[in-house]
Amino acid sequence: MLVVMNHLATQEQINYVVESIEKRGYTARTIPGGERVSIGILYNKGSVDASLFQALPGVKEVIPITRPYKQVSREFKPDNTIIRIGNLTIGGKNLIIMAGPCAIESEKQAMTIANHVASSGAHIFRGGAFKPRTSPYSFQGLGEKGLQILAKVRKETGMPVVTEVMDFQNFDLVEEYADIVQIGTRNMQNFSLLRRAGKAKKPILLKRGMAATIQEWLMAAEYILEEGNTQVILCERGVRTFVNHSRNTLDISAIPVVRKESHLPIIVDPSHAAGIRDQVEPLSLASVAAEAHGLMIEVHHAPDEALSDGAQSLYPDQFDILCKKIRAMHALFDK
Amino acid sequence: MLVVMNHLATQEQINYVVESIEKRGYTARTIPGGERVSIGILYNKGSVDASLFQALPGVKEVIPITRPYKQVSREFKPDNTIIRIGNLTIGGKNLIIMAGPCAIESEKQAMTIANHVASSGAHIFRGGAFKPRTSPYSFQGLGEKGLQILAKVRKETGMPVVTEVMDFQNFDLVEEYADIVQIGTRNMQNFSLLRRAGKAKKPILLKRGMAATIQEWLMAAEYILEEGNTQVILCERGVRTFVNHSRNTLDISAIPVVRKESHLPIIVDPSHAAGIRDQVEPLSLASVAAEAHGLMIEVHHAPDEALSDGAQSLYPDQFDILCKKIRAMHALFDK
Amino acid sequence: MLVVMNHLATQEQINYVVESIEKRGYTARTIPGGERVSIGILYNKGSVDASLFQALPGVKEVIPITRPYKQVSREFKPDNTIIRIGNLTIGGKNLIIMAGPCAIESEKQAMTIANHVASSGAHIFRGGAFKPRTSPYSFQGLGEKGLQILAKVRKETGMPVVTEVMDFQNFDLVEEYADIVQIGTRNMQNFSLLRRAGKAKKPILLKRGMAATIQEWLMAAEYILEEGNTQVILCERGVRTFVNHSRNTLDISAIPVVRKESHLPIIVDPSHAAGIRDQVEPLSLASVAAEAHGLMIEVHHAPDEALSDGAQSLYPDQFDILCKKIRAMHALFDK
Amino acid sequence: MLVVMNHLATQEQINYVVESIEKRGYTARTIPGGERVSIGILYNKGSVDASLFQALPGVKEVIPITRPYKQVSREFKPDNTIIRIGNLTIGGKNLIIMAGPCAIESEKQAMTIANHVASSGAHIFRGGAFKPRTSPYSFQGLGEKGLQILAKVRKETGMPVVTEVMDFQNFDLVEEYADIVQIGTRNMQNFSLLRRAGKAKKPILLKRGMAATIQEWLMAAEYILEEGNTQVILCERGVRTFVNHSRNTLDISAIPVVRKESHLPIIVDPSHAAGIRDQVEPLSLASVAAEAHGLMIEVHHAPDEALSDGAQSLYPDQFDILCKKIRAMHALFDK
Repeated sequence: MLVVMNHLATQEQINYVVESIEKRGYTARTIPGGERVSIGILYNKGSVDASLFQALPGVKEVIPITRPYKQVSREFKPDNTIIRIGNLTIGGKNLIIMAGPCAIESEKQAMTIANHVASSGAHIFRGGAFKPRTSPYSFQGLGEKGLQILAKVRKETGMPVVTEVMDFQNFDLVEEYADIVQIGTRNMQNFSLLRRAGKAKKPILLKRGMAATIQEWLMAAEYILEEGNTQVILCERGVRTFVNHSRNTLDISAIPVVRKESHLPIIVDPSHAAGIRDQVEPLSLASVAAEAHGLMIEVHHAPDEALSDGAQSLYPDQFDILCKKIRAMHALFDK
Repeated sequence: MLVVMNHLATQEQINYVVESIEKRGYTARTIPGGERVSIGILYNKGSVDASLFQALPGVKEVIPITRPYKQVSREFKPDNTIIRIGNLTIGGKNLIIMAGPCAIESEKQAMTIANHVASSGAHIFRGGAFKPRTSPYSFQGLGEKGLQILAKVRKETGMPVVTEVMDFQNFDLVEEYADIVQIGTRNMQNFSLLRRAGKAKKPILLKRGMAATIQEWLMAAEYILEEGNTQVILCERGVRTFVNHSRNTLDISAIPVVRKESHLPIIVDPSHAAGIRDQVEPLSLASVAAEAHGLMIEVHHAPDEALSDGAQSLYPDQFDILCKKIRAMHALFDK
Repeated sequence: MLVVMNHLATQEQINYVVESIEKRGYTARTIPGGERVSIGILYNKGSVDASLFQALPGVKEVIPITRPYKQVSREFKPDNTIIRIGNLTIGGKNLIIMAGPCAIESEKQAMTIANHVASSGAHIFRGGAFKPRTSPYSFQGLGEKGLQILAKVRKETGMPVVTEVMDFQNFDLVEEYADIVQIGTRNMQNFSLLRRAGKAKKPILLKRGMAATIQEWLMAAEYILEEGNTQVILCERGVRTFVNHSRNTLDISAIPVVRKESHLPIIVDPSHAAGIRDQVEPLSLASVAAEAHGLMIEVHHAPDEALSDGAQSLYPDQFDILCKKIRAMHALFDK
Repeated sequence: MLVVMNHLATQEQINYVVESIEKRGYTARTIPGGERVSIGILYNKGSVDASLFQALPGVKEVIPITRPYKQVSREFKPDNTIIRIGNLTIGGKNLIIMAGPCAIESEKQAMTIANHVASSGAHIFRGGAFKPRTSPYSFQGLGEKGLQILAKVRKETGMPVVTEVMDFQNFDLVEEYADIVQIGTRNMQNFSLLRRAGKAKKPILLKRGMAATIQEWLMAAEYILEEGNTQVILCERGVRTFVNHSRNTLDISAIPVVRKESHLPIIVDPSHAAGIRDQVEPLSLASVAAEAHGLMIEVHHAPDEALSDGAQSLYPDQFDILCKKIRAMHALFDK
């Protein structure tokens, strides 16, 4: 942490900052600069809260240097975290494809889609039982009935299932049925939910918040690791920008940055980034090319009749072609 | 293109729009709708400039999609919602000032600040007992102990208190102590929490999400009203943009837009928008000028030692001067 | 400037960075930190290009400390720049109102509006003769004919005129007619135009770019000052964000930040920020409350027939009421 | 709501949309338009979810405004525009790689880098002679001397050259030397420059503005085509968002959207999107995977000593490896 003083800061102001730093138990070192003095905060273990010094008299700005996250960082754990679900692994050299409808609508719908995606090569089935919807008047999911359908899909197809948990109250229930428990974009900083996820026995798929920096996202994961659950998969799904030709703007460079900063696996959800079917294939392939560890793709056999997100769901045929392209592309990295 | 008329538009106004369209060389077709008349523009080659018709008398908008929200809308309830807390009202012509520290740190700290802000003219005391923090290693608030301190502040100063609830589990507890229950930015789309708030007997202060459109924000409020609680105060606190000289970008035009679209009161939190003390005064005055129903301002008697958000907290003296300016400015609107 | 090393950086890498700094003529000072080493760059006059060191081996990041602008900064010139145009001053305690149509459409239109705004108390008349339009098929302005009309308005009403210059080729012409030469949002980083403006004898009104940081904006002004013209007025007009209820998002906190960082006057264009008439009044008053030095407002006597920006132009009556409110509010700051 | 059908939609598809609308309980009214059929949705209470109809067969879009651009649109010219430069083509199935330093610094520097990139397989040499710089104190390029060096590079290596024109005044000069004339991000809406480019005999590479929508970008290209020059290459280079781990946010979905909306070729500049060397490879591969027609990559043999953008320039060895990966990946699409 570096406290940069105003170019007119008095010696008294500088001394006051030094004292404030040392009162907090850190070491201060004054650094003369070209036009102004700066004060380094040294020998701190972990991060220091910038706002503690930002508004002291004579301070121009405070610049954090150390990263605030610990357990999620690659510096803390240099090797990739590999998550095992049955015979599958996530976070290694292989590419995992999760696919299925936005929401579980009925057993028939789920099974139809599951059979399609399994035959195309998907590894994990996705489907929402509890749906976070912008409007209270929209379809909210089948609830426990949806979870039971997921269990049936797993039993019949052998695919593990991933589904979203929306709140603390239903966590036990979702954890009982799911192989991977998803925390959605809108809950990325629901800290009570993150702590509960940290006590779960199942891997957590943590979606990036709509306006979250990577640092905030990794800090959200830190909450989960801090409680003892190290099985966290990060999922990039686009961020909100002024761009209006897609539902969100897929932040492709999040993939290399997360891979560099953290040991946790990172996958991409191109469907929510795109918001429209046509863009799902190019975004999927781009994510594979940028070396995501996996993809989560919405597929529906009759998207025109889907109860949610129909416009961004692929037809089974499109998904089948996409899987072939994905495999061909990923083979380039496999060597 | 569809020109949507105001639901009170006169036949004369409709005729004028039709003429304006035809004067531009297009064909107009009047379309009776559920609640209002719309006018389609037909046989246009290429695009039509929406702004040509957007501001004609009686025109509501040119984009044809009617609003997804119902109970929060001014069309549904034309008169302002006035929220009563003891002798105070929020949502009328008066201006309500909520002030206090970011977090309750001790009884002494809370009482010291409360006495300061009360003597400056604050109406409601704010202070966090449960704090949503980006990092699991930051101070998380005093919990129930903080709520008890708030109760004491209320007893001694007579000011009602507003404090944040972070999760469903603690809602009963927070509701018991608080006069207004705050739902924070990161929980704006925590739908379980919103539904619980909808069953509360206390007014809810709903902060805008960091990347929420006004439509999404009003839909979040709709969740609360839908469950039966009509006492909702909206709080603008800045949105996340590329701008880096303030913590967030205060969206001043949210004030007139919310006032037009909804009957719910809207207040502004300039402290979280600014992130730095120097900007709090101009943002506060700007919000009063744009006719917010109130302000929520962070104040600390020793911000250099605050456990959170010190840099954006005003000194009591600054707050006192600000209150005088606020009152002088608001007096202009009071007549 | 501070070069922060990776926590695993070798002594060799640190030495290489030190050498690279000193090869550029600066002084390097190594600073041991809690978990990593940083290297300060000292005794530099003016700013150092961060990218010179950002990608050296072992470097984690480079943090600039000194501001890159000089002549526009308040540190360079502590007193406000006051711009004089006839009897008017911009940049002092008074508030300047510029008003008029988006584009000059005819002598009759211009004169009608000019008489209206003059009688309401506007100080300066605005009107475009050369119009930057997104589409090549939109009305592009009257060109020199428009400038002649502006001259006539000035002669008849006594108001100085401000109008936009779009390119180097027409600069002489615009400079000849205008009292203030405007450089628009889309040209904020048209560096050839900025250099030409720096040689002009007339004050320059420099609008902020749609996605410009304040630092970039001030650097654009620096180009003008560097060429010798110190008469620059900055104009905030909203930035582009995800927010969709206004054409742009007015960045109110730009006012206090510019006032703190620079000695140049800052005014606000609420019309382009809003994009819709209803928001112009609240944004205008908010800007006055945040202590802008002036406002630039679009007014049209028949906005439904305006050739551009009709939807955001005030009716003369609205403008008249607004001027009264502005004066009442500004009187609070005048004491 | 207006459902706009594809201009080739069959009667069967139209009927299907009408049925889908009526199945939802609304009334559909078919509206013949200038170039296509649209279907109005009438008598809906409250809003209709656009996504319900957005992806039905034959539907173009649900928002009723037809596009403002003409000549750049694929509807206007269904076949890809193929730009020929000597033996090279841009816009077809092949992938074009442009590479070189940010700025031409000397003949030796240019020639060294040119030989490197040529041997790695680059097709076109890039290098700035006139440099738009945020600061007037930064290196501004060698000017005509730089152009002469580019000519020498072309002569010795056989590679065509692309270089930026910053203003109208130097256009003749740049056009004389360059094989492709680049218009930079900050000039995307410099309309005088665009019109001049429209009269040029050389192809134009038009970079996307930092905060430009695709519609605005295509409208900028429309200015060039309108003046008679149909040889325009679009270049995505990232947009400005709140994201701070990269210099800009690469908008990958711009590739499929531009390919769908327009017949013009689209390439990607991963270097300016990234701003940091580490991200250039993943962004390049992602762009190839999303089917960009080419890439423009900054390479420097001694980036630590570069006069601009050193941090984002690849070392020649990195570029060589990247070219091999690019070719392997592009081969997948070549079949």
